[in-house]
Parts: sequence; structure tokens; C-alpha cells
Amino acid sequence: MSPGGFSCRHLTIVGLGLMGGSLALALRGVAGTITGVDPDEETRRYAVEHFIVDTATDDLKEGVKDADVVIMAAPVRVILGMIERRIGSYLRSNTLLIDIGSTKEDICEAMAQLPIGIQAIGGHPMTGKERSGVTASDPALYRGRPFVLCPTRRTTPAARLRALELIETLQAVPFEMDAIRHDRLVAAISHLPYLLSSALVATVAKEGENDATVWELAAGGFRDMSRLAGSDVEMMGDILSTNTQAVATLLALFRVQLAMLEAKLISRDDKEVTEFLRPAREVRLDWYAKYENGTK
Amino acid sequence: MSPGGFSCRHLTIVGLGLMGGSLALALRGVAGTITGVDPDEETRRYAVEHFIVDTATDDLKEGVKDADVVIMAAPVRVILGMIERRIGSYLRSNTLLIDIGSTKEDICEAMAQLPIGIQAIGGHPMTGKERSGVTASDPALYRGRPFVLCPTRRTTPAARLRALELIETLQAVPFEMDAIRHDRLVAAISHLPYLLSSALVATVAKEGENDATVWELAAGGFRDMSRLAGSDVEMMGDILSTNTQAVATLLALFRVQLAMLEAKLISRDDKEVTEFLRPAREVRLDWYAKYENGTK
Repeated sequence: MSPGGFSCRHLTIVGLGLMGGSLALALRGVAGTITGVDPDEETRRYAVEHFIVDTATDDLKEGVKDADVVIMAAPVRVILGMIERRIGSYLRSNTLLIDIGSTKEDICEAMAQLPIGIQAIGGHPMTGKERSGVTASDPALYRGRPFVLCPTRRTTPAARLRALELIETLQAVPFEMDAIRHDRLVAAISHLPYLLSSALVATVAKEGENDATVWELAAGGFRDMSRLAGSDVEMMGDILSTNTQAVATLLALFRVQLAMLEAKLISRDDKEVTEFLRPAREVRLDWYAKYENGTK
Repeated sequence: MSPGGFSCRHLTIVGLGLMGGSLALALRGVAGTITGVDPDEETRRYAVEHFIVDTATDDLKEGVKDADVVIMAAPVRVILGMIERRIGSYLRSNTLLIDIGSTKEDICEAMAQLPIGIQAIGGHPMTGKERSGVTASDPALYRGRPFVLCPTRRTTPAARLRALELIETLQAVPFEMDAIRHDRLVAAISHLPYLLSSALVATVAKEGENDATVWELAAGGFRDMSRLAGSDVEMMGDILSTNTQAVATLLALFRVQLAMLEAKLISRDDKEVTEFLRPAREVRLDWYAKYENGTK
């Protein structure tokens, strides 16, 4: 038996990227059969040849029709498209359908419209890696990391328990909350940071038009602050466009903080400046100590 | 002979932190004697016991009076205080005086007032480490990294050449520019990123007052974007207060970029959003490939 007590007859993972491939590896021992659905032939071949999945197809209907558990591991708009247009009619009744898209409100609303009998629940594991794609698959990707579950109108108590068992099997840390709360929290810790990173790079690029030496002097601080700007633009565009309101709210909160800090700087009141910076530093050090401990 | 052809009879390094300790280690073979000046007894003992310096003292006059090369490796305001109040009268004529403070305009202006005969030049190596303090000293810290030199009214051609030789001995990459240009460039790549990081942490802290779960969900993206907020507050306060104008200019440029991005988001024009994000991504990936190559 697996640590979480989760098992299934036929698991289908739609989308064999880093997240989907890692799910397949982590659930290898608890699923009778694993099928992968992916549009990319090279990805499918790699996943089968490396025993990440048992079978692979580019046909969604073919891939999910016999499954008792389906996990959609694709960009948010792709997941939305599947739920709204096709997957409901392909699934057997009582199939557990989980998605791991990065925003949850639109997806959970779409799930609520699925045929009665489909057990649908929204999910979002807070994990990742520098590298992406099926070749980066890692069975430990979810271990010790938060995995948020957002109930939908199609989530029965049994579906919820099964999803929790799946998370336990992944050795992830479950959090349950409604989709709106989820989207607000990730706006703060994920989408706002991404926007700041992109706007910083755009600012330095403007500066670089006048003085290209700026690129040669940039070092570790800029490296860290610009990393998120290197994220996949289509994926992030999907995320932002399905979370515009929360992102706008967080941007407004951020602007207030930045304006406060700037006002203190410009008034040249060094004590006021450090009184702003010090609690931010302490909060960051406290958080990081816990985070580092949790990811060990 | 060292690779850079630099040598001196008696090198004194004022400030035995990570930067000063690493300079001492890197210049071990090319200096007859190395003296360290530091107010902290524990630091001095460590530096002597680990052969980072030959002798150590907490007395600035005592430490620098016999030196032919003095490097000030301290926070900006400490360096300014030394130049403005004391060090000029302690140094022998013809001593090469270099500082490695993070902002250059105020320091180079102060250096211009030093007694004629002192060979003073501003410096700023763009390097660092997660760990700080003398115990993190590393002779390779400067290798392959930019080292900016800013001339002052007290920089003779001979002093400039000697400083360039020193940089070559460190295996760092020299850049020469005036102090105002330096301060503007580091405002873009270092001070603005720090302010954004601190304001981001302050924003998430505000969010955390309403929903503390935000801290439990924060992951790798937040980790990178918040790292700079964990910097030493006094040191950063010094830096910001000696570069307020350039920092304010860069903040204004940043605000324009962020406002443009936000406007595109709110108008829900996905194509416009990705057209902003895509060049930022490309610029970041290009820069990072070169940066990573340079630091190998």
C-alpha cells in the first residue's frame, strides 16, 4: 500500500510536462495503468520509453474514456477548453477529475457545469523546477510542497477524500480553500512577483538603450529578481488573464507600499527608511527559515 | 609575479567583512605585509588565526600609517566618515587609496578633498555571496566579476594603472566610468531591485495580516523575489541615502513600465500583455546566458 492509501485502476494524465510527468512517476506504484495524453509526439515517445506512462495518445477521448482518475496538467486555458467543450462527455460516470491549473476560480466554475456523476475538484500544487518538460520529470517534485484543493459543485465528500489520499501519496501538504481565496493568495506570492520581475527587466532594458553597460554590471541581485521574467509567456498570460481582478488588487497594495518607501527615501529620513526595511527583512528571514526547513 | 603585475610592500584593508577578507586572500601573494583594520575583536582574531592578514588592529591610524596601498572595504557612510575626518592625515604621501563602497559619487567627491599626494580612486566590485563576514572570505570572490573604477581629482595616471593591475591580479573585469554614471547604473540593477523586493515582502506581509496561509503557500518564485529584502538594512540604508536621486529616477521609470503592463492587463487584451512580457523574457534569457557563462 502507498503512504496515502490512494489507488486507482486506470489513471490518465492529460499534459506530460514537468508537472504531469512527475505526477505519473510519483503515482507509478498505486495506479494499475497510467495513460498520458499529449499533443507532442516526441513527448509521448519519451514518456513511454522511460516508463513514465504505460500508454500515450494525442486523442483526449481515447485517453480518458477508460480512466477512473483523470488529472489535467496543462495551462489554464487548455484546461478550461477541455472542461467547457469536451471532457464531460468522454468520462465515465464517477470518474475523479482533478486539474492542477495555476488559477482556480474560472476552472472550478467550469467544473460546476460538468455532467452530474463526474467527481471534479480543483487542485494547485505549489511546486516547480528551473527546467520544464517531460524530461525533467521527478517523482519527488511534490514532496513536502503545498497542494491546494478547491471544491466545486461537483465535489462529493468521497471525491474530496480521494483527492486528499492522492496528495498524501505524493507526500505533499494539503490545503483546502475556496477558489477565490486561492486566486487572491497566489496573486500575492506568484503573479505579483512575476509582474514585478517583468517590469524590472523592461525598466533595465530601457536603461540599456541609453547605456548598454548596465547589462555587463548586472549581478546576483538582478539575476534573482529577473528570473521569473524568463517564465513561459503564454502560460503566464493565461494565468494573468484568469486572475485579473486579484492581480489588480495586489498591484494596488504593492503601489502603496512602494510609494511609502519612496516618500521616506525622498524625504531623506534615514531612520524612517530603515524602519520600513527592517520589518520586511525580519519577515523574510523568518519565512525563509521555515521554507528552507520544509523543502529539505 | 602575479597575473596582473600588481605588487605592494604593505597592504592595509580597512573592514574585514566578506569583501575585505576575500581581497586579503586574493592578494596574499603580491603584498609584502597585509594589515587588517576592524573594530570587532573576534573578526580580527579570526583573520589573523586563519592567515587572512598578517596583523590586525582596531586603530585606523596605526593600521594605515605604514601602508603603501589602503583599501577601504566598509559600508558607504563609514568610508565617507574616514575620508572626511581622518584618513588623509594618517596616510603617507603617494599611498594608493581605493574604496569599494557601493555608491561612488559622494565618496569620489570626498576623495577629491584629500591632501595632494594621496592617490585616491573609487572602486566597486560587482560581486557577493549569500553568507557575509570574514568567515565567508573567498580568494575567488572577484574572479570573472566586474570591478568598476571611478577616477577622482586625486587619481593620477599612475594610480589608475596600479588600480587596473590590482583588478587584473584579482582576475576581475575592469570598467572605468565617472561616479555619476556608476551610481545611475547600480540604481537600475541593484538598488531598484532591492526596493522592489522589500516592497513586495511588505505587501505580502499586509496580505498575511488578513490571511496568514499566504506564507505557507509561498514557494520558489517568492523566495527569489524576496531574497534581497533580507539584506543588511543599515548597509542598504547607507547605499540608498547616498544615491537618492538616481534611485528616484529609476523608480519613476519602473512605475511607467508597471503601469503600462497593468493597463494592458486590465483592458484584458491578452495579445498586448504577451507583447509586453515576451521581449522582457527574451532580454532576460539572453542576459542570463551571458552572465552564467561569465561566472563559470
